[in-house]
Amino acid sequence: MTNSGFDTPEAAEAAFYQAFTTVDADLMVAVWADGDDALCIHPGSDLRRGKTAVMTSWTEIFSGSLAPAVEYRYVGGYASENLVVRIVEERIWPRDKQRSEATRVLATNVYVRDEGSWRMTEHHASLPLMERGVDSSDQRRLH
Amino acid sequence: MTNSGFDTPEAAEAAFYQAFTTVDADLMVAVWADGDDALCIHPGSDLRRGKTAVMTSWTEIFSGSLAPAVEYRYVGGYASENLVVRIVEERIWPRDKQRSEATRVLATNVYVRDEGSWRMTEHHASLPLMERGVDSSDQRRLH
Repeated sequence: MTNSGFDTPEAAEAAFYQAFTTVDADLMVAVWADGDDALCIHPGSDLRRGKTAVMTSWTEIFSGSLAPAVEYRYVGGYASENLVVRIVEERIWPRDKQRSEATRVLATNVYVRDEGSWRMTEHHASLPLMERGVDSSDQRRLH
Repeated sequence: MTNSGFDTPEAAEAAFYQAFTTVDADLMVAVWADGDDALCIHPGSDLRRGKTAVMTSWTEIFSGSLAPAVEYRYVGGYASENLVVRIVEERIWPRDKQRSEATRVLATNVYVRDEGSWRMTEHHASLPLMERGVDSSDQRRLH
């Protein structure tokens, strides 16, 4: 990690989840791209637009809870020279609970490269309420 | 629209919502990129991976309902030469109901360019259950 970003999208993503699990607001600030283009959709929540609003949401999350346990797993994505999309499966649970009680979250994480370094610019997370496993193709749907 | 994609991400997106509102499975097939990289997360649902699974989900949706009314509005995004991310706000309602009864959905739509033409490769949609408007910065959150 540097103050100006990360060498790879994977490094930015690792820092994002490290910031989440250690409730480290300074690291979260370093992870996110500056300016009005940053967008964050927490599970079940509305869009936060711009780095200030995004960081306000994370500060609220960090202030209201103990550091959670978070695992993440890359499940797919798309890459270009300066823009990368990574879809990950998250499992989040309180540290005083068992992993089997984890909430599963699907997230689309978008990273941009600026002056050679990568930062997160979008995090769109949602709860698969009707879950059947990431590779299932026969589940029901809401849409 | 052509069988091999669209001239711009915006044209692919317009075709995606046209396919949705006209329950046109053939057009939806034309919108989506081929292969295993296609990913679709319907609101509250799990990940569908690969064009076959994605199209199965749309066929289920189309077979189970009348053509809905759908409006969409671009709210932000990121572009590179061959990869584009567009975040849109959707409003979806049954045609025999009023627009005021619309369900609001937030979607991250990802498009890839292949051989000069654009197709959708990811659609991640979620319901802002605790909605306060797209540009609100003081809402509560689940995360």
